[in-house]
Amino acid sequence: MKKLILAALTSGLMVSANAQAEMPATPAKAAMCIGCHGEAGNSVVPNFPKLAGQHAAYTEKQLKDFREGYRKDPVMSGFAKGLTDEEIKELAAYYAAQTQK
Amino acid sequence: MKKLILAALTSGLMVSANAQAEMPATPAKAAMCIGCHGEAGNSVVPNFPKLAGQHAAYTEKQLKDFREGYRKDPVMSGFAKGLTDEEIKELAAYYAAQTQK
Repeated sequence: MKKLILAALTSGLMVSANAQAEMPATPAKAAMCIGCHGEAGNSVVPNFPKLAGQHAAYTEKQLKDFREGYRKDPVMSGFAKGLTDEEIKELAAYYAAQTQK
Repeated sequence: MKKLILAALTSGLMVSANAQAEMPATPAKAAMCIGCHGEAGNSVVPNFPKLAGQHAAYTEKQLKDFREGYRKDPVMSGFAKGLTDEEIKELAAYYAAQTQK
């Protein structure tokens, strides 16, 4: 029984460690997003989309589309122009890992 | 004590009834969305956004932008052209009321 409890505890710790490893650090450029898209991508403004939990591939494409002018928005186009491919990838992965509230 | 339990149960039932009242019925046109955006807006395809839990005002604007050509996508533009303002409002409210998974 003791072994079972120990195994359960150890596996719990491993799951917890994995969950932490999978959670990306907040990218520096996320500071630009928080005003409209809220804390960790949970926008509280109905006009601005929630990004939390959104597929990374989708968010990445939107940022690139804004940057390259395929999708147009006076605010987003400006912000996206200042992002590298790497920064876009980081932002998209970060928001995908958040929980929608 | 009995009164307290009864009050708690009644208030529980009322909350439950309200929660049901707030959940919009699945709009007929949602049948067009399910292929890409998944069951109740929980897309499992990384390229297609999750709509579940998204702000209704945002989803509504995107559908109108697709319909009127401000936002362009070969698939979405076609679908949106077939939607009335009322249908767009219903779809946006329906997806906003779903829980993101």
